[in-house]
Order: sequence, then C-alpha cells, then structure tokens
Amino acid sequence: MANPVLPSSGVLSPLGLDAVRLSPGFWGDRIALNSEVTIAHCQEWEEREGWIGNFRGERPRRGREFSDSEIYKLLEAMSWAGHPGLTALAETVAKAQEGDGYLNTRWSGSRYTDFEWGHELYCYGHLIQAGVARLRMHGEDVLTQVAVKAADHVCRRFMEGNETCGHPVAEMALVELYRVTGTERYLEMARRFVERRGLPALGDIPFGRAYYQDDLPIRQAQVFRGHAVRALYLASGVVDVAVETGDQELLKTVESQWERTVARRTHLTGGMGSRHADESFGEDYELPPDRAYNETCASIASIMLAHRLLLATGDVRYADLTERTLYNMLATGVALDGRSFFYANPLQVRVPAVPLEGVNHAAEGGLRSPWFDVSCCPNNIARTLASLPAYVAAATRDGIVIHHLTPAEIRHEGLAVRVETGYPWTGSVSVRVLADGEGRIGLRVPAWASDATLAHVPVSSQDSPLPDGPVIRPVSPGYAHVDGPWRAGDEIRLELPMRPRWTFPDRRIDALRSTAAVERGPLVYCAESVADEPPLGEVTARIEPPVEHEADGVVELEVAASIGAGVNGGWPYEPAAADHEDGADTTVRLVPYHRWGNRGPATMRVWLPI
Amino acid sequence: MANPVLPSSGVLSPLGLDAVRLSPGFWGDRIALNSEVTIAHCQEWEEREGWIGNFRGERPRRGREFSDSEIYKLLEAMSWAGHPGLTALAETVAKAQEGDGYLNTRWSGSRYTDFEWGHELYCYGHLIQAGVARLRMHGEDVLTQVAVKAADHVCRRFMEGNETCGHPVAEMALVELYRVTGTERYLEMARRFVERRGLPALGDIPFGRAYYQDDLPIRQAQVFRGHAVRALYLASGVVDVAVETGDQELLKTVESQWERTVARRTHLTGGMGSRHADESFGEDYELPPDRAYNETCASIASIMLAHRLLLATGDVRYADLTERTLYNMLATGVALDGRSFFYANPLQVRVPAVPLEGVNHAAEGGLRSPWFDVSCCPNNIARTLASLPAYVAAATRDGIVIHHLTPAEIRHEGLAVRVETGYPWTGSVSVRVLADGEGRIGLRVPAWASDATLAHVPVSSQDSPLPDGPVIRPVSPGYAHVDGPWRAGDEIRLELPMRPRWTFPDRRIDALRSTAAVERGPLVYCAESVADEPPLGEVTARIEPPVEHEADGVVELEVAASIGAGVNGGWPYEPAAADHEDGADTTVRLVPYHRWGNRGPATMRVWLPI
Repeated sequence: MANPVLPSSGVLSPLGLDAVRLSPGFWGDRIALNSEVTIAHCQEWEEREGWIGNFRGERPRRGREFSDSEIYKLLEAMSWAGHPGLTALAETVAKAQEGDGYLNTRWSGSRYTDFEWGHELYCYGHLIQAGVARLRMHGEDVLTQVAVKAADHVCRRFMEGNETCGHPVAEMALVELYRVTGTERYLEMARRFVERRGLPALGDIPFGRAYYQDDLPIRQAQVFRGHAVRALYLASGVVDVAVETGDQELLKTVESQWERTVARRTHLTGGMGSRHADESFGEDYELPPDRAYNETCASIASIMLAHRLLLATGDVRYADLTERTLYNMLATGVALDGRSFFYANPLQVRVPAVPLEGVNHAAEGGLRSPWFDVSCCPNNIARTLASLPAYVAAATRDGIVIHHLTPAEIRHEGLAVRVETGYPWTGSVSVRVLADGEGRIGLRVPAWASDATLAHVPVSSQDSPLPDGPVIRPVSPGYAHVDGPWRAGDEIRLELPMRPRWTFPDRRIDALRSTAAVERGPLVYCAESVADEPPLGEVTARIEPPVEHEADGVVELEVAASIGAGVNGGWPYEPAAADHEDGADTTVRLVPYHRWGNRGPATMRVWLPI
Repeated sequence: MANPVLPSSGVLSPLGLDAVRLSPGFWGDRIALNSEVTIAHCQEWEEREGWIGNFRGERPRRGREFSDSEIYKLLEAMSWAGHPGLTALAETVAKAQEGDGYLNTRWSGSRYTDFEWGHELYCYGHLIQAGVARLRMHGEDVLTQVAVKAADHVCRRFMEGNETCGHPVAEMALVELYRVTGTERYLEMARRFVERRGLPALGDIPFGRAYYQDDLPIRQAQVFRGHAVRALYLASGVVDVAVETGDQELLKTVESQWERTVARRTHLTGGMGSRHADESFGEDYELPPDRAYNETCASIASIMLAHRLLLATGDVRYADLTERTLYNMLATGVALDGRSFFYANPLQVRVPAVPLEGVNHAAEGGLRSPWFDVSCCPNNIARTLASLPAYVAAATRDGIVIHHLTPAEIRHEGLAVRVETGYPWTGSVSVRVLADGEGRIGLRVPAWASDATLAHVPVSSQDSPLPDGPVIRPVSPGYAHVDGPWRAGDEIRLELPMRPRWTFPDRRIDALRSTAAVERGPLVYCAESVADEPPLGEVTARIEPPVEHEADGVVELEVAASIGAGVNGGWPYEPAAADHEDGADTTVRLVPYHRWGNRGPATMRVWLPI
C-alpha cells in the first residue's frame, strides 16, 4: 500500500501509488516533470550549498540548523519516485548516524541543548517520513534502517519527561512508522509529544509561545495559530494520533479548529499564514492580499491535514479545500520548467520583482527562485508531487470515490477505471470502466459546481444508442455515486459548469473591502501586468461576465474595467472620496493564478477594486 | 542656544529651550510628566535590566548589542531636562571608555568586526548627541569629554577607508558636534559617512541592502525605503551635511524623497514604516491599518527630519507633518501616566491585547508596556519631549514664527509673547505681546484649517474698544503674519475651525478602500471598544457630521453607524457581495487616537468601513 498516510481506521481508505496511476494531464505532467527535473535540481543545489557535504563531515558545516531535513525531504521524494540516486544519498546520510541512533550534523556534540530552535526532532520527523515512504515503496534498506534506528533513539530519549521540539512533524512521522511496522512505542511516543505540548513544554520567545503552539494544550485551542507550517504539521500528527487511539473527541477538536481557520484565516487560493514577521496565521479576518505570506510549505501542510481529515470523516469539504490548495498553491509554487519556486505566495504584487540569479535570501514573492537559504519549499513540493497519486481517490466500504478529477487509471479490488478529462480547463469528465466488475463509484462534484450533471452510459447503449441519448441527471456538490455492476466499456460522464464567476469577500476582511475576484472551475484567476503595463494600481473592474480566450490549452479571461489615477496630491488623505467613475474604459487580462510570474517580472492582483 | 539642531544657515533659525518655555497645556503638561516621571522610569529599568551595569563591567553583559545607546538617549534627555542624576550616570559611562576613545560594552575586545549589525557607530552617534545637548545646556563636563573623545576616535579610525555603520545616526550627531565646537573634521567625517553609503559600504543581508539604505547612493534614491528609523536618521544627517556644506542639490534630493514618502508611504497619523518583518517602509501605497508598524522611534525620526527641512527651507508643509506626527504619534507613544509605551502604532486592533507585566518581548501594539527588550522608544520619547520647546517657534529675518500652537512664552531679541490656547481641543489662540518691541510675528495656520480668521487687537483698542470690535480677516493655511511695532498688551487672536471632518484615502491605498476616518483639528480620531463591545469588525459608519462630547477637557465624538455580522458561512468568499444596508442602527464613540489604549484592553480602528 504505497501511501504517505495509511490509517488503520476511518470512513475512507486511501488508494496509493500502486492503485492510482496518473496519465498525461494537468497533474500527470507535473508529476513527470517533478520526477525528471525537480528532484535532480534539489539534489544539485543541496550538494552545491554543502548541505549534503555536512553528512560527509565536511567542515565548516554549512547551512541553517535544520538543513539536514532538506536532504530527508528529498529522500522521501526519491522514495516515492523510485529515483535511482536514492541509495547513494541514503548511504551518505547513514555515515553520519551515531551508534545510539543520534543523527544531526549541526548539534552532534551539543545534543538537545535548544529545543526551541534546534529542530533535532523536526529533522528526525522528516527522516522517518522518508523511511516510511521507502518501506512502503521498496522495503527495508539502508534508509529505512537509519530511520528506524533514529526513531528508536527518540523513543529511548524522550518517552519519559516533558520535552518536545519547537517544530512539530515527528508526531505524524512516528504514527506512520507505527502503521508500517506495527511497533506500538512509536504511536505512544507521538501521543506523548502531542499531549505535552502547551503544558507548556518549551521556553518563552519573543514571538510568544503561540508561535510553536505551546501556548495551550491542543485540546483547548479553538483555531490554528502561530507559525502556519508548525500549526498544520502538528494538527496532522494530532489527527493521526486521534485515529490510531480511537480518540473521537480529539479528532473533533481538530475538525473544529480547521473549520474556524478555513472560515476566517484562509486566503482565496487556500493559502494559509498571513504574516511575514513570524510566518504565522495572524488574527481572524487578517487576510491582506499584498502581504499575504502563504508559504508554499504551509499549503502542503494544509493538504496533508485535509487529506487526513477526509480519510477519517469522509466529509467532502476537506477534499474541496485540498483541490483549491492543489490548483492555486501547489501548482503555483513551482515554475512551468520545474526549476524555480515561490516561497511566499501573495495575492497582490505592486512592484515587479528584480530578477535574481542564484540563491534568494528573502522569502518574498514576485519571481520564483531556484533556491533559498531556507529551502523547505522546493523539497516539500518534490515529495508532495511524487506522492500525489495517493491523494486522488480512496476506497469506500463498497467501492471507490474519486476526489480529484484528473486523467488517471485507478484499480481497486474488482474495479478498474480510466478517468479522461481536460479539467481544469474543461468541465467534461469521463470515467470509463476497464473491466467487468462490482462496486459503487463516487465522483466528487466540487463545492462551486452548482449546475453539474451526470450521465451513466452503459456500454450496451453505446452499441445501440438510446433514442434520446443517455439519461442525464443533475448532481449537487458533494459525492455523486453510481452503482454497479459494471461491464467493461461502461462510462460515467460528469459535466461541470466552467463559466467564470465573480467572488466577493466577507465584509469582515478589511483588506479586501470593495474588491472582487474571478474564479473559473477550481482555478483562481489574477490580473498579471508585465512591467505594470497597464498599471494595476489604477484599475477598477466592472462586474460583467468575463470573456474567455484559449491559448495553448490555457484559458485566459478578460474583464471590463476603467483605468484612472488616484486623487493624490502631496498627501494621500483627502476631504472628499475618490470618484471611481472618472476613468477611461479598458480591459484587464486575467491568467490562472498558478501561471503568474512565468513571463518575467510583473505586477499582479487577484482581488480587483470594483 | 539650547537647541538640538542649530544650523549655521537656513531660512529659519531655531529658538531653543532658552527662548521658548512651555506653560501648562497639552505639551507643557507632557514635558513636566516626562521630566518628573518618564526619565526616572527609564533609568530604573536600565539599571534593573543590567544595561547600566554593563558600563561598570558587571558580567555577564546583559541586553542587546546596542543597549549602550539607550543610556546615551537617556543622558540626552537628562541634559535637556537638567536632571540631577546626569553626572553620576555620565561618570559610570566614562569609566568604560578606553584610552583611545573607544567605548562599547559589547564589542570591546572584538572592535569593528560587524559593521552590518554591530551598531558601534550608532552608539557613538547617540553618545555624541547627548554630549551636544550637555554642551548647549550646561557646558563642558564629564559627559561632553567622553563624547568628544569618542568623536575624535571615530574621526581617526574612519576618516579614510569606506566603512560605515549598519544603523545611521552618527552623521547628524557629528554635524551637530561640529556646530557646537567649530571643529571641521566632525563635519567632514559626517560628509564621508553620507557619501560612502550605497557604493555599497556594507555586506548583503537577507533583508537586502535597502534595509540599511546601502542599495543606492543617497543622491540616486527617489524615496525613503528600508528600515524606517535608519532611513529617517540618515536623511536627517544628510540635510545637516547639505546645509553645512552648502550643497543645495543634496538638500533638494532629500526634499523630493520626503515628498514622495509623505504622498505614498505615510499613514494618516504621520506614522511611517508599514512592515513588521524588517521594520521597513514597504512599497508605495502599502499602508495597512492593522499591520501598520509605525514604530514610535520612526515618528520621532520623522519629526527630526521635518524640523531640519523646515529650518532649511521655511516651507510650512514640514511643520504641518510635524504637527500631525506630534499629536498622533509622539503623544500616542506614551501613556497618560508617563510609565508605559507603544513600540508599534497600528491604526486597527482586532483583538484586545492580553495585559502584560514587566518587559514586553514583542514590539506589537495593543497595550502600552513599561519596557521592551529593545527599548529605544521610551528613551527616544524622553529625549524628544525634553527638547520639545525647541520645535515650537523659530526666528525669521525680521521676527519670529510660531509653528506649534500651544501655551508658551517666547522671547527673541526685541520680541516677547505669551501664547494662550486650549488647542488642540479648542481653536482659539491668543498671542499676547509682553513688552514693547519690534518685529514681525507669524503664526502657522494648519493645512486642514480652511476657514481660519485672524484679528490684531492693539492694547489701545482694548482700553477703548472699536465700535465694531477688532478687524477680523480670513487667513489661509500657511503662515499668517502681523507686523509690529508692538506695545505690551497687544494681542493677536487666531480662530481655527474645529469642526470634526471626514477624511477619505487615495484610491490606490488598497487596504483602506471604502473606509473613512474622522479628524478634528490636528487630531486623528479612532473608534475604541473596550473588550470589543460593540464589535468593531461589524460596524459600518454613515458619513454624517459627528456629534461632539466634552469630558474632562477631552473632546470625544460620536458617529452614526449600522452594525451587523458578515455573510460568513464556512468559507469567507461568496458569489454575491455583502449587503451593507442590512445592519441595525447604532452609534460609535470616537476618541482621539493618542488617548486610545488608556482604558485597558480594547479593539480600535481609525478607518471605519462606510
């Protein structure tokens, strides 16, 4: 079962890389690019920066205190992708492991002297996730031995006491290692890390203990807060612990934290974490488009969390947020050539970025960069894309459900289907049954698809078509199910309405007042203006139906607008309100948000003044 | 000439603490409180935190790498205030000075090894400013000897080469030391520091070289950028160098940088520096109310710069911005009891702060704090309030101008006047001549005062009043002048319109779209809601004339509004715009922004949705 998450119970059981194979298409192409380009790109940079050399004992040690973890994320990506370079890299890592299982190129010699910022358990967490991936895709080898030895060391060292790490991730990694090995102490260790947090377990820091979710015990918190990646990794581990220990109350707690976070602390793109200063969520309704931090890694963590909640509950809302985040954050995080990355993902950029060569020292948005001082995002993208097929569909009690509508072949027990679609550009989805079989097939109808229809077209009717064509029925957002039995050639046709639609913000989101955005299907669109021509700061859009243009298989849009300068003299605050009616007519071109920044330095805005 | 800034040329000559004495009133009361409470408060905390102990050689050294500078800012405040504790504190400092003039409790032993972050020249700058204040108020003593010795060391060490400091301030300090001593090498050293910057002179850092204004030579920059305090301190030093070297082009450059910054990067309160992450300006029109950083020290730096530009050019716009910043930033930065301080000054607070005791480790707004890990703001407030009389009036070629309308006695050559006013609460200002004399008297009519009137009431007419009363003439914003000769008892009466007024943002300020604020006189008002009752996130104001209430000498306002929740379900982005007309009628109480946060934890907003 080649899966990054494999719970022993839950409403849905995931289908892994052995059951789901993506075909060429939006995600299949990206997975291929990841495997062929991005993984090697990451390894090259980690070698160049000396982060791999650290494991060989090269001195001075280079990189940040958590750079070991980047190699582990890459090893996880290599595991899922079956990358031939894995063994050599894993052997390099193994050489740095000490006799008792301790492994860290920064803190060897001063072990466990800084739980707040040391990241030692965080590094183990990623090492263990790599080991789990390798066990599931391949079986035992040097990498899995290193990971298990490290996990055993962690259990010996931390089972008693009240210590934990400033950066969660070990929690979910240990549960997964329990799931793959059956060794219960890993689950118990994870459970204790979860329950220790917020007692408090860590020291106070200038950002406050909420930064690393140590301000409150997990059961008392009402919303995700503090550093977004930390908060979402922790919540993922908590769901894993709750599921394996049968703690329904704990699961419900995370569900309710998620619910409030999605309703009040999430950007239209699915991005989470508004603040630059501490990479944190910020307050309810603090959702500035320009300074939205929306770290790529936080969106990956959000996908990991929503996937776990989906499997545990079967609630479609988790798949809806995952889709939004996949198309508008994960797909945005990496350039079309697979070699450069966004760290922050703002929804507005006022000034075109200055092109950089080499490492980007700042985690700002504007132009994708080949590498960062802190390069979690490239490696996280690599491991997520490499395991993405496991997020596409799941097994139910009596069949399968397909969460994400993308070209694929899916096989599970008696069922084998091929999904064909031009989604997200077109709304037509065909699911063709490949072999006679039994079982219920479910398709997710996205939350935004209010006029979707579904047709069940038996192969028999294809031979002798019905006089009125197949029976087409309307389907509501949620899961639309069709029952078997099936004959090879049977088809389910889902039609989703792909009209562009205007979307308006809740009035409590101060930073978006009197603006609107355009979405089409699962895609958020944005105005992109190369070299700020036209100047996007002076555009006011009209709420009229956008016009569609297709170019090279990509749907772009055009909206009517007026353009005109502000009222600014020497002081930008005036005794009369600006007149929004005095601009000249123009049109503004919108591109899918995930494609912005691929044409060179540009200004951009998702939310258009209206 | 007891003045923090004393240029050898310029359109205006400052009047110092020897010429201007503030009487009880808005600023006179605050100066007295500063002298009686705040200065001692700062000294107590610096002792408690060990920052003074560092000069005694106590180990381990405590505080940040720039903590020496806090003691110097405090010594400057003590100099202006004539504080009796000065000599003992200065002697403590003197003991730590090395034979060649070097003085730094952090870097002694590893001198000048970190120009980017070491702050050694920054510390000297504040030491020299303290020495200049002492020389002007008192004459030579232990403090001035230490300062001069340090300045001589700086000149010997740095006159050649291309080094400078990551944090400007030495530039303006050295020019002032030249002005008070006549020693030209101090001016030359300042000039070289100014011209070296941006060649570049410092290393690259993750924030980018713009952080410390080393991205461009000063003559090529078009706007203030990077760390706000650094940018504004540097610009102040550049004006000083330009004035003393007669470099009109350099002066014009700073004027034009100031102009664009005020038009595009300044908050309604006069606050500068939008970003938390690097305490920087951010881009043009990036003026978020909630995340406005607006460091108190940046506002003080802005006052220092505008004062210099005012003296050099006589242009009233610099006095207008200074007034705005004084009443809405400096007065906000310190609590009514003089013992707690804001570091950041946002224009919106959504969640009431949690009360803190002791040091505040975060520079967030919400509640004033008695002390910070980085406590520049309390000491900067202390030195600014102690020297504030020097900002009130200036000498012209043929008389005086009064920039700031506050109770005071002003004496200059043949002129002696007493200003009486309840400003900023009332708009009536009386300037009474105290002795027979000659000369032109100018009064600043603030930029917002579009219907002001002025009357000249000779003492003779007071004995036998004119049948129709004194001649009242309308005066426009700018300086209104009345010519002598004067007889003791003559009076000038200025009447300023104090109607509350609605103010609207330039349409390019995205974060303020569809909001308005209320101002009255020089004061910006804000809605303050203790414990968020009523919930300020749900209020929509009506653009109707606010109602005034006076309570304890403070004018509060009330505006009509509707109140109603947002449209939020589980996802805060909806296919229809929120209906703003569906709320219940209510009123919202507005208080002067500078008084907010004095009634306990509260939510607050300056810009009201309309």
